[in-house]
Amino acid sequence: MDGVRKKLVQQSVCAIIGAGEGLGQALASRFAKNDFALALISRTESGSAAAIKAAGKYTPSVRFFKADATNPNTIENALKKVSAEMGDVEVLIYNCRDNFTACAPLEMSYESMLETYNVEVVGAFAAAKSVLPDMISKLRGTIFFSSATAAYRGSSTHPLYSIGKFGLRALSQSLAKAYGRNGVHVVHVRLDCDLDVPYMRNSHGPDYDRNKLANPDAVAESYWLAYKQPKAAWSNEIELRPNVENWTL
Amino acid sequence: MDGVRKKLVQQSVCAIIGAGEGLGQALASRFAKNDFALALISRTESGSAAAIKAAGKYTPSVRFFKADATNPNTIENALKKVSAEMGDVEVLIYNCRDNFTACAPLEMSYESMLETYNVEVVGAFAAAKSVLPDMISKLRGTIFFSSATAAYRGSSTHPLYSIGKFGLRALSQSLAKAYGRNGVHVVHVRLDCDLDVPYMRNSHGPDYDRNKLANPDAVAESYWLAYKQPKAAWSNEIELRPNVENWTL
Amino acid sequence: MDGVRKKLVQQSVCAIIGAGEGLGQALASRFAKNDFALALISRTESGSAAAIKAAGKYTPSVRFFKADATNPNTIENALKKVSAEMGDVEVLIYNCRDNFTACAPLEMSYESMLETYNVEVVGAFAAAKSVLPDMISKLRGTIFFSSATAAYRGSSTHPLYSIGKFGLRALSQSLAKAYGRNGVHVVHVRLDCDLDVPYMRNSHGPDYDRNKLANPDAVAESYWLAYKQPKAAWSNEIELRPNVENWTL
Amino acid sequence: MDGVRKKLVQQSVCAIIGAGEGLGQALASRFAKNDFALALISRTESGSAAAIKAAGKYTPSVRFFKADATNPNTIENALKKVSAEMGDVEVLIYNCRDNFTACAPLEMSYESMLETYNVEVVGAFAAAKSVLPDMISKLRGTIFFSSATAAYRGSSTHPLYSIGKFGLRALSQSLAKAYGRNGVHVVHVRLDCDLDVPYMRNSHGPDYDRNKLANPDAVAESYWLAYKQPKAAWSNEIELRPNVENWTL
Repeated sequence: MDGVRKKLVQQSVCAIIGAGEGLGQALASRFAKNDFALALISRTESGSAAAIKAAGKYTPSVRFFKADATNPNTIENALKKVSAEMGDVEVLIYNCRDNFTACAPLEMSYESMLETYNVEVVGAFAAAKSVLPDMISKLRGTIFFSSATAAYRGSSTHPLYSIGKFGLRALSQSLAKAYGRNGVHVVHVRLDCDLDVPYMRNSHGPDYDRNKLANPDAVAESYWLAYKQPKAAWSNEIELRPNVENWTL
Repeated sequence: MDGVRKKLVQQSVCAIIGAGEGLGQALASRFAKNDFALALISRTESGSAAAIKAAGKYTPSVRFFKADATNPNTIENALKKVSAEMGDVEVLIYNCRDNFTACAPLEMSYESMLETYNVEVVGAFAAAKSVLPDMISKLRGTIFFSSATAAYRGSSTHPLYSIGKFGLRALSQSLAKAYGRNGVHVVHVRLDCDLDVPYMRNSHGPDYDRNKLANPDAVAESYWLAYKQPKAAWSNEIELRPNVENWTL
Repeated sequence: MDGVRKKLVQQSVCAIIGAGEGLGQALASRFAKNDFALALISRTESGSAAAIKAAGKYTPSVRFFKADATNPNTIENALKKVSAEMGDVEVLIYNCRDNFTACAPLEMSYESMLETYNVEVVGAFAAAKSVLPDMISKLRGTIFFSSATAAYRGSSTHPLYSIGKFGLRALSQSLAKAYGRNGVHVVHVRLDCDLDVPYMRNSHGPDYDRNKLANPDAVAESYWLAYKQPKAAWSNEIELRPNVENWTL
Repeated sequence: MDGVRKKLVQQSVCAIIGAGEGLGQALASRFAKNDFALALISRTESGSAAAIKAAGKYTPSVRFFKADATNPNTIENALKKVSAEMGDVEVLIYNCRDNFTACAPLEMSYESMLETYNVEVVGAFAAAKSVLPDMISKLRGTIFFSSATAAYRGSSTHPLYSIGKFGLRALSQSLAKAYGRNGVHVVHVRLDCDLDVPYMRNSHGPDYDRNKLANPDAVAESYWLAYKQPKAAWSNEIELRPNVENWTL
């Protein structure tokens, strides 16, 4: 038992906000495989069940923490607990996104605009802010923001998603420029594709073709490789697409 | 008197949200010069005094309306009044920006993040939303969003400004893509320079060199020329810089 | 007769390299309409017949000069003649492009790569180089490069066109950054659309819909408006698209 | 001896065009370390001496081939020899660049424009063309183009370099879009920094600070990690900068 506790303390910690059944699960699994302890943070433990199970195959050090991405204080609190109970976070992955429902720009409500901003930008900042001081003092750490091509262009059908991801990209660049010199690797990951996850399978319906969607495990592998970059040659903005994908930009 | 009332009704209306002493004044003056009626909208009438005076040199049709850019409902209300009292808006210029104070990313408060978003994005949408249905029904109208190079890159010293302007650009692109086909010209104006206005003169201090700052009247002239573009050859994103400016991107 | 000669000398000169029946003709017509003398430069006079006729409606000062865009020396020679016989060039428009035939990247020949580069980049530089020293000495002048969205992204079907336009954009930015401070307005015009010209009508075939193509006269009008920008608020890169166009980027 | 020959045949081959003492050497070393056979291609064997020696520490399978980047046929011939004598190329790295001397845009000669284009674009295409058909038939292979931030913006002081790198980027995107679906990973690597190599040390002079320059071994490591990306989550454009670098774009 002492041995296990010791192991918990010594392992590096990877915290994932938005650890659901899609990319969250694949990321949890990938970092667990390389001996990270995993802190999985979502609104409900059931929503993270798949990620908990997947990471559990590789390490006993998997813990769930509750937070609501629309409320930055809950994110701060969850990450304080992670730090106190599991150790300082070495890798933070902010993997939340708001509802991806289509609407014409004129149909946006002010409430939906605020919610998107809270989830995409304020919550991302709350997560980063919770781990940055420690990373800066150690001159070491990695922060990933899961994003999309929507961060690069507006949309007549998904304006909320685009507004949120643009803001997230601005946040990511600002943090990278400010704290890269302190040894913190901040990475905006632009997924230029749809992911092969249950939500997208439904959305594609009869046209579903697994080769046209990005495999979450492959995406997680490319996150891992970005984490492995030496600090003298970092990428701060990464695009990922399946080899069969038509570029959307 | 009947003549004046008739004139008020017949004149095209240009509404400027954020009609202060800098670019707002120059824009008011420029559109008044070409026989537009001017609706100037700001937090306080004294803040718009310079713009009211400048436009008044060209037309008697200058009216002030009160709104607070941090509250989208006040913008909606102001523009409803404009429409009822002056006629439908032909040109809308959203020229607000939040405080331009420097801070490190880690020093951003959640409150300041929300305020910036409200001023830069939600307020801009409130303004656009107030005039778009009428413009769409007439298949005619122009909406300008005053923006900056900050909309294209993050900043280690002014992250709030960047996050706000990125969001504004996403909004502008989304509206342009959605309603261009309905004859509405939506334009994001990226000022790649500091403006020669009192605030910037102070900020530059002893290094102030008027040739290094953009002349507001010249900038207003380029807004006017963009307004004159035929709909079969529109620009939706415009960059403006003084000829002596080093490109910042 | 003395009057006419005097007029020739006093008129500002607009030189168009690549003055064919499409955009070249519309540009010639637009600048002639505002009292420019027109120097039209192409491989053959018959190729410029439509432009000569169109400009001739507005001014007697229309001259044809021969040059081959694949050979920069012929461009230099033509512009020397323009300067000697018509006066210094105030507006230069480089409006050439190489064949727009589709090919897979692997099918590009080295010869075709060089030809594209000669037409799109070296020829553009030859033209700019011929007028810049005079413009710099006068602290005044405008240079337009007609370009396309192909300057912003590669293509699996038209790689030559893309390689050429990327290079043209680099040239345009470099000239703008170097000589803007000398009062020369250098503008890269990105046409984000197909033009409604005979070549494109054929290429669209039965799907031809004039509303989906950019009207050359409207495009020429937007060139004119860019020419009118005051030097304290210039655009150096302009995008133009019909209001009904879907953005291609 | 038979064993060695067998090894030569079985090893995967990495071919580097432009294998000098800077990044070329580091790349040769990195791929040799992971059991690649190295084909090093430059104008002179003495220019590749450092790379040959560095790779030789990890594998006996290091061969030099002669080619002149200004002449695409010599590149084709060299790569034919590589294929015949060492086996098909699995990883191709085009790492050439033309002289990096400063000049004002007006000082560019047509000859220098053609030379830059030959080295940066035509030579890169010649190299890619030599290996692509085999890679396509195997549904496997990686092509790197070493590039720079100059591919993203023009320059008043280094216009040739910018024109060349813009063209290279267009080529890279075109190849990626065309042949990604055939399993070929095409990667444009934007070095957003100066490299800590002898040339740059001299160029920085007394201001030389090794922490401000990118370490070539670190850069090579990030190439390696990009090579390891699974094909369902590829990056086609990568930026690399040292953590202490100010972003130049």
